[in-house]
Amino acid sequence: MSEQPPADESVKVKLKLTIAYDGTNYKGWQIQPSGMTVQQRVEEALRRLFPSVERIQGSSRTDTGVHAMGMVAHAEFPKSEYRMKTRKVPLALNAFLPEDIRVVDAKQVPSSFHARFDSQGKQYQYKIWNHHSTNPMLRGLTWHVPVKLNVKRMKMAAQHFLGRQDFRSLAANRDYTIENTTRTLFRCDVQASGPLITIVIEGDGFLYKMCRSIVGTLCLVGHGKKAPEDIPKLLQKKDREFAGMSAPPHGLTLQKVYYSNFHRG
Amino acid sequence: MSEQPPADESVKVKLKLTIAYDGTNYKGWQIQPSGMTVQQRVEEALRRLFPSVERIQGSSRTDTGVHAMGMVAHAEFPKSEYRMKTRKVPLALNAFLPEDIRVVDAKQVPSSFHARFDSQGKQYQYKIWNHHSTNPMLRGLTWHVPVKLNVKRMKMAAQHFLGRQDFRSLAANRDYTIENTTRTLFRCDVQASGPLITIVIEGDGFLYKMCRSIVGTLCLVGHGKKAPEDIPKLLQKKDREFAGMSAPPHGLTLQKVYYSNFHRG
Repeated sequence: MSEQPPADESVKVKLKLTIAYDGTNYKGWQIQPSGMTVQQRVEEALRRLFPSVERIQGSSRTDTGVHAMGMVAHAEFPKSEYRMKTRKVPLALNAFLPEDIRVVDAKQVPSSFHARFDSQGKQYQYKIWNHHSTNPMLRGLTWHVPVKLNVKRMKMAAQHFLGRQDFRSLAANRDYTIENTTRTLFRCDVQASGPLITIVIEGDGFLYKMCRSIVGTLCLVGHGKKAPEDIPKLLQKKDREFAGMSAPPHGLTLQKVYYSNFHRG
Repeated sequence: MSEQPPADESVKVKLKLTIAYDGTNYKGWQIQPSGMTVQQRVEEALRRLFPSVERIQGSSRTDTGVHAMGMVAHAEFPKSEYRMKTRKVPLALNAFLPEDIRVVDAKQVPSSFHARFDSQGKQYQYKIWNHHSTNPMLRGLTWHVPVKLNVKRMKMAAQHFLGRQDFRSLAANRDYTIENTTRTLFRCDVQASGPLITIVIEGDGFLYKMCRSIVGTLCLVGHGKKAPEDIPKLLQKKDREFAGMSAPPHGLTLQKVYYSNFHRG
């Protein structure tokens, strides 16, 4: 066997990982001083395979208790440590991950790819269990709303959130200081299947707690405390005071993150 | 105030309870010497309200890990202990139950009502997560089948289970000794929504592990190991050896129990 030249640590591999998790037992996605996060668990698993992996970058932060079916993150490490086929990466990582976190896909991407900055949009789904009693099987995945909601009125109200608009009225205080609060929603659907109501929200970007504020506001309409026609007025006020409460985190799932075809893999 | 006559303990009240539970943490429905069961938890809660409640009777036994959305049980106790409105019973019982068990409905029924003997049929649902990776959010509620199933062929096979037939080939050994293994299935549907496959089975009665054996057999067809046309032959053999394995319990939910209109409440 011929002698190997020393590995060039500057030659890197970048992977785009798609990650699903049950957020119940985590302090959200992003690494933080206190409490276990999903990012930390995924980095720990990556280090078992690729010891020099750098801090990974997620497409978005999810709050404590929020779930994901399609969180995207990129991970970079020296090519010299990459001794497996890309299609084997999910299986290998899942061996080092707890059952409530799964890497569902891995693709090799150009070094220019950035999970956050290249994202062109996201889909969130919010689930409500609208029945006088909770659903014990879905208790960690749905917001329990015991009083009957008027889904027809919620559907009407949801249409007013569509398009390019200033969503300042639906941003949490934390985002009041940012200048541009204009976002575009492509989809805001309310679907009911028995007591299970699913709200699908798709947009090019989201302010902090924006999805949960939309859901909270739709529920005000569903309870008859606001009319569907109140939504445009509420958006015009540009003041959080006029919107509904934020719906709780455990009903929310980051469903998909969209990239241009080039990066879709 | 006039003196109360002594309560007549022989005058009873009978309640029909509808119960939902996540079976993950229970050794099934029925009380048994070792391990906590759902029946035990419900009886404990009932005793907090109606101290002299008798052993309750469920419409069916569910195995360890099986879930329910609509288990039905009857409970009987002296009328003298019944000091609340029937519509308040679920709320009161749920205060004494863990989060993974909920009483979703209570109705007062005639003393002749029997949750098991008066049942006219049941609906079970079985959920499969058919994706190379598990779904962390539904891991306790779905059977993970990583190899792609042919749903079209499963739908074709499912139709062969319908009608009045001898299901001896799909009974667990325990039921081999019972004489009458003829049952009638009204419905056997295979529905797919992305990677989530739901099998809905409705019948007048079920042999032990019959639902899970049907699901296991449908998966053999989905994997191409049996043809849809093999199902009638398999039923004719009346021998468990020829059917597929029983699918695991955690994908199964007892969805509804049907009674005649008189008892539907």
